This record gives sequence, structure tokens and C-alpha cells, in this order.
Amino acid sequence: MSRTVQGARVFHWPIRVYWEDTDAGGIVFYANYLKFFERARTEWLRSLGLGQHKLREECGGMFVVVETHVKYHRPARLDDELVVTAHLSEMGQASMTILQQVLSKNERAPASPAELLCTGSIRIGWVDATTLKPAKIPKNILEVVKQ
Amino acid sequence: MSRTVQGARVFHWPIRVYWEDTDAGGIVFYANYLKFFERARTEWLRSLGLGQHKLREECGGMFVVVETHVKYHRPARLDDELVVTAHLSEMGQASMTILQQVLSKNERAPASPAELLCTGSIRIGWVDATTLKPAKIPKNILEVVKQ
Amino acid sequence: MSRTVQGARVFHWPIRVYWEDTDAGGIVFYANYLKFFERARTEWLRSLGLGQHKLREECGGMFVVVETHVKYHRPARLDDELVVTAHLSEMGQASMTILQQVLSKNERAPASPAELLCTGSIRIGWVDATTLKPAKIPKNILEVVKQ
Amino acid sequence: MSRTVQGARVFHWPIRVYWEDTDAGGIVFYANYLKFFERARTEWLRSLGLGQHKLREECGGMFVVVETHVKYHRPARLDDELVVTAHLSEMGQASMTILQQVLSKNERAPASPAELLCTGSIRIGWVDATTLKPAKIPKNILEVVKQ
Repeated sequence: MSRTVQGARVFHWPIRVYWEDTDAGGIVFYANYLKFFERARTEWLRSLGLGQHKLREECGGMFVVVETHVKYHRPARLDDELVVTAHLSEMGQASMTILQQVLSKNERAPASPAELLCTGSIRIGWVDATTLKPAKIPKNILEVVKQ
Repeated sequence: MSRTVQGARVFHWPIRVYWEDTDAGGIVFYANYLKFFERARTEWLRSLGLGQHKLREECGGMFVVVETHVKYHRPARLDDELVVTAHLSEMGQASMTILQQVLSKNERAPASPAELLCTGSIRIGWVDATTLKPAKIPKNILEVVKQ
Repeated sequence: MSRTVQGARVFHWPIRVYWEDTDAGGIVFYANYLKFFERARTEWLRSLGLGQHKLREECGGMFVVVETHVKYHRPARLDDELVVTAHLSEMGQASMTILQQVLSKNERAPASPAELLCTGSIRIGWVDATTLKPAKIPKNILEVVKQ
Repeated sequence: MSRTVQGARVFHWPIRVYWEDTDAGGIVFYANYLKFFERARTEWLRSLGLGQHKLREECGGMFVVVETHVKYHRPARLDDELVVTAHLSEMGQASMTILQQVLSKNERAPASPAELLCTGSIRIGWVDATTLKPAKIPKNILEVVKQ
């Protein structure tokens, strides 16, 4: 059973669009937003003291993605400067859901509001590092993440 | 308004897992299933006579992904031989939804049933090739796709 | 000390260009040719009975790329049907060099000669599967590969 | 005819390794170093006032990669913090060669020297933005880049 998390902090991470991220449509290839979301989640966890090595070595496991739901509103383009957010929205014993957005910082009109390009709801589950089987999220992680 | 499509043909496309598809967890990186899904959708459209050049040159537009919903059930690994399906499930005037699965062909036990690794629901919208703005799906495409 | 291999068989592998392979220049992103080369090398080894599992489980190691040299002659585009070749050119005790080409099959003029798009010289070294340290290529592999 | 450039400034760009960059060998997938090199080249050009939009809109063209030569010395791993360098080494009328390195910042022993993981020699050519044909590098770019 998972419960909604109220008032969780919103984490922000800047990302620049390079050639590698685009496709022949002239825009960011849609699968690559999952990469942008993951970079922001990784940095969000690191900002909480939960780097990849710590998770694996001290907590004995890692998070794996079990479900993604992404909506594409407007395209990002080569060289765009984006901000990707991460924000805990639901929390269960073995998984949690992070809401994420990709926003465009308009460099040519910095005073104008950021445009929403893409939204994602990413559910990640905890697995044992050795068996890769689902397991309960360790308590010390739960406590840190909820803050 | 979109409506459910009954009894649509299920298209199958084989995909082999290479090093490029995997990550340090030893499994296929989850964002890459979107690539596998797209390869199968592209080949499904081609099998209906709707190659990328035809869409653009004769129909004046292209499909873009507007929403993805993916569930990850079991991991695929290096060298696995997969089958990816594509199957029209909903159809509107400007977009349609394709249900897709990634199944594992167990080469060591070919008689055993294929394992379901990943399911996706991918909504694609039609856009004008020049303006990239949403537009009604051309009738000749609708007719072919519904078969 | 490595020696030139004369008269080695040229292996061919077909590859289709999908959206995932392209960039905003409208062409295949140059780093992706390394993926195309690797798919062809993997299938070349498989055609010799040297699949990834066999290499690891029976031979106790794997090949890793130690050097790449790639020249880009002409761009490939979305939906192009390519042929990628692999061809052993040098052989040492711990590494070997494979020459590779990406050729374009012109679907609209199938009788015209294939265009050369890209050439690569890829040196791969054998490493122990456990320590990941360089090691001598097992004899049974050498014998099969030289054929 | 191209000539060697002496004493060019070495540009540095930090890069973090994420899951997307790794493969099932537990290390960074070798093709992805080309992405790292490109991010550093892009930021090097931007630091000289030569952003992608400026190149295209004011100079009427763009740089494309025509040849890459990469040596892989030691693997980078998940979560590693890397420094990627870019450094002009040769300059011709229509192309130039940039030498690049990927170095590992050892976070656990910050006083120890950075390890060299990968070296690349990347030749980029100037092409007209409309025709995509090779062209002479505009003078204002040459002058800025040589500094």
C-alpha cells in the first residue's frame, strides 16, 4: 500500500541539449526524456546523501524503474537549456513514485515563464543488489527521502 | 474522440539485444524499450505500405509520440532474442494508441511459452510535416491502419 | 606482435535506420555507426559459433573494444537500408583488428552499386571475464576466427 | 593543407556517468565517449562565443564529424566524475582536428593525479547549412578558434 506524499521538496537539475539527444525531426528524441528524468532523480538522491555507491554498499540494493508514464507537450531543440524537476509523490514499502517535469529556460527572454515541455511519473522499486529481487526499501532511505 | 479498435491484427518483430542496449545492472536499460517499441511500430506501418517516405511525401506529415505508458515486468539481457508486438487499440481523428509487448523467446527451451518482459501503450499523433502542428490523420492512412 | 590476415571472409549484416539512430542534422548520428559496427561483429562471431554466452561460459572471457578509427564519407538517413561488413584484418595474441564498412543499399535503384558511407577499423582485446584484465585469446577462438 | 597548432588553450568540461552511459560490462559503453567528447567540444565552442545558433544563423553552416580516432585505456564506471578536455591541434581551410581526453577525478583520493581513461582525435569539417556540402571555414571562426 502506498500513500501520497504532501509538500515534498521539488528538486531542480539543469540539462543542456546536445546533438546526441536529438533526432531527424529536429527535436529531442522522446525516449531521451527518460534519460533526463533519471539524471535528475540521481542528483536528487545524491543531494540527500544517497549516491549510487552508498545505496549499493551500505544499503545493499538499488532502485530500478518499474513503470513510466510520460506526456510530451512541446518539443525541446538542439542547444536548449532545460530544467528537470524531481518530486516524491507516492511512497510504498517497496516502491515510490516520483513526479518529474522538463521545463525550458528561454534564454532569449529570461523574464518570461518557463515552458512545460514534458511530464513524467516514474515508479521505482527497491531490489536486492545480489538477487535483483524486489525488497522493502531500507528505513534509513525512507526517512531521508520523505524530508 | 477516440474509439476502441476490436480485433486488430497483432504485428510481430524480432529484436536481438546487443551491448548498446544494456546497462551496468546487466540488463536492458529501460529507456531502450521505447526504441524497441518504435522499431516494431515502424515495421508494422511499413508492412501496411506506410513507410516513412510515403508518409512524408504522399501524406504530408508524420507521426510523433505524444504519450507513453510502460510497465517493466522482467528484465531482458545481453544476447536475448526478443519479439516485439504492435497492435492498434484506439483510434481518434488526430491520434491513435498502439499496445505493445516485449516477449522473450527462450532459445534454450523453445517449446516453453514466451515470457512477457514489458508492456507499453504508445499514443502517436499526426503532425503536418512543415509546421509540425497537430492535424487530422489522412483518410487513406486511417483506412489502411484499421484493417 | 600481430600479423596481417589475408583473404579472410567478409561478413555482411543488414541494418535499417530508425528515428533513434538519427540526429537533428537529419542524418545518422556519427557515434551510432559504432553501434552498427558492433552489431555486425557480434553476428559475425555468432555465425562462427562464438555467441556471447559461449565466449563467457566456455572461454572465460569477452572481447572489449580498445581502439576505434572511423571515417565518415557520406551520411545515412532515416529509413535507409544499410549493409554492414566485418572482416578480420590483423591478429595478435591478445587482440585483433576488424575492418568494417557501412554501405547503402539504394532501394530506389537496386541495380546501382552500393555507396560506401563509413569505414571503421576496430581493435578488440580479450579480457578475463572475472578480472577484466587483458589475456591471451583462447586457441579455439583463434582457430575459428582465422577461417 | 592543414597545419599544427601550437600552444592552444586546453578546455575542460566535467561530466558525470549515469546509468544511460553504461553497459552490461559494468563500464561506460565505448561509443558513448564520442558523446562525451562532443559535449566538451560544444561547450568549448560556446566558451569562444560560437554557440550552435550563432554558427548556423550568422556563419551559415555547421561542423560535422568526418573522422574519429579513439583509444580506450581504462574504463569509467557508474557515478564516476570525469573531466573531458578539448584542444585544437590542427587547422585547415575546411576542417580542423581537436585532441580530447577523458580523465577520471578520483573523488576518494582527490589529491592523487587524474587517471587518463580515453583519448580521441576528432576531425570536424565545416559544411554549408543548406546544402550540407563541405565549405571553407568562415574567417571569423578561424580567428576565434586559434586563440
